[in-house]
Amino acid sequence: MTQPAQVRIVEVGPRDGLQNEKTLIPTAAKIELIDRLTATGLQTVEATSFVSPKWVPQLADAADVFAGIHRRPGVAYPVLVPNLQGYERARAVGAEEVAVFTAASEAFNRNNTNASIDESIERFRPVLEAAKADGVRVRGYVSTVLGCPFQGEVPLSDVVRVARNLHALGCYEISLGDTIGIGTPGKARAMLRAVAAEVPMPALAIHFHDTRGQALANILSCLEEGVAVVDAAVSGTGGCPYAPGASGNVASEDVVYMLEGLGIRTGVDLPKLVETGRWLAALLGRGSGSKVNLASV
Amino acid sequence: MTQPAQVRIVEVGPRDGLQNEKTLIPTAAKIELIDRLTATGLQTVEATSFVSPKWVPQLADAADVFAGIHRRPGVAYPVLVPNLQGYERARAVGAEEVAVFTAASEAFNRNNTNASIDESIERFRPVLEAAKADGVRVRGYVSTVLGCPFQGEVPLSDVVRVARNLHALGCYEISLGDTIGIGTPGKARAMLRAVAAEVPMPALAIHFHDTRGQALANILSCLEEGVAVVDAAVSGTGGCPYAPGASGNVASEDVVYMLEGLGIRTGVDLPKLVETGRWLAALLGRGSGSKVNLASV
Repeated sequence: MTQPAQVRIVEVGPRDGLQNEKTLIPTAAKIELIDRLTATGLQTVEATSFVSPKWVPQLADAADVFAGIHRRPGVAYPVLVPNLQGYERARAVGAEEVAVFTAASEAFNRNNTNASIDESIERFRPVLEAAKADGVRVRGYVSTVLGCPFQGEVPLSDVVRVARNLHALGCYEISLGDTIGIGTPGKARAMLRAVAAEVPMPALAIHFHDTRGQALANILSCLEEGVAVVDAAVSGTGGCPYAPGASGNVASEDVVYMLEGLGIRTGVDLPKLVETGRWLAALLGRGSGSKVNLASV
Repeated sequence: MTQPAQVRIVEVGPRDGLQNEKTLIPTAAKIELIDRLTATGLQTVEATSFVSPKWVPQLADAADVFAGIHRRPGVAYPVLVPNLQGYERARAVGAEEVAVFTAASEAFNRNNTNASIDESIERFRPVLEAAKADGVRVRGYVSTVLGCPFQGEVPLSDVVRVARNLHALGCYEISLGDTIGIGTPGKARAMLRAVAAEVPMPALAIHFHDTRGQALANILSCLEEGVAVVDAAVSGTGGCPYAPGASGNVASEDVVYMLEGLGIRTGVDLPKLVETGRWLAALLGRGSGSKVNLASV
């Protein structure tokens, strides 16, 4: 097993984190959050979502947020888009990278997007075609890769099939999400290994929620398989819509702390990241979801 | 690397967890806690501490707690003893297993017990002699095995030396403690491997605090080295005297959840353990320190 020498953190706090936070954050603060995050050295910060504000009221100001950020050269600012219309709204404010999403669980996808997995992939097709023509990079999310709140077990073959399809359609990176944080390290490792047999490891990212405290252990087991892209959210924002009161995305601070300890480079300034996480927690009016943050006295 | 088929959880909540909790718990509730814990199937529950009440006011009722518990056949109830006097108090109420403690860090030991490591080991010698004569089993704790709040780095050779000495003195099991939860998985693994070169793995336990969220990942890396005894505290009680507001012991619920997911037997009924953790959190008037608990809706 070979641990990577370097890991790229995909910071998803401003999108996946905030979209499940109830406290509405002003547009200016969202812009400041993103600018603070890129100042820590993060190379990829998912900035916002062009999903309908009806579904995600917190991110109704997507266009203003995106237009307001201080774009650092070399930093990628993907934004989530649900369809071609969302893609065009994102492009109108200058997005150069987008992310599309589907699930490995048929039941979840139907509940979440009112479409079958294959139908949701069909919706992306025009997005991927337009993106290709525009020179826009597309990231693909696969959710519920380790379990589903509706159907329970998700067969590995379904995860592999969906990841392979997104990759074949042109997504440069596939982010494998344990949306409800139900996985454990052996299962996470087996899932990644199965997908990596069909999609090259450099095109894979892991996206784990810490609902049951397993995220870092799951990440560790996947690092041992060679994955080198890890999604995380500063201050562990997000929560879980299926478990009120539970933890959200794995906290970026805790991931960076572990990676540094393992001798894996991230290029992220941890003290600056901790400071940003603390600032965000204060803004949200709650304790930090990062244990490294709480321990940094 | 061989993961064990079975792990024994040493539940340290009633002692290591409670001793750092400010809310004073009535004696009857402590007894109920221990009885609830053994009803989950736990085979080892550290019951209390016969350290001076001046140092640990929460456990001033050690004798009453120990005398009050419903002793289940086959369950071990170790109690912490600082010296021969503590040992005799523990024996007077029928303790059949005791635990002694020292540190791998000279600075920590001096600060914590006002003695050098060698002096503290000398204090145990009469305890170990008496225990041997009485047929009492002795567990040995080594704290600060991955770092010290006073001296910072702790040389591996110091950890190995102290563990070897305790084992040579007759401790049947050595619990290796990351007291301030500062370690990361690679360091935890290297530490365990170094100790296991001198003390047989079946005589080793790991005792990790979750101060920086690393405990489960650290446990995972040690399981891969073959360790089969893991200390944990229900509901993640304890906090950290060196980092106010930080997390305490790794939560037993989260450990059992991970082990079950890895296919490792624990003999513990997780729903019952979650219920006990919830009951304890309510008693302490705070949220559970177990993420599995918070997710169990």
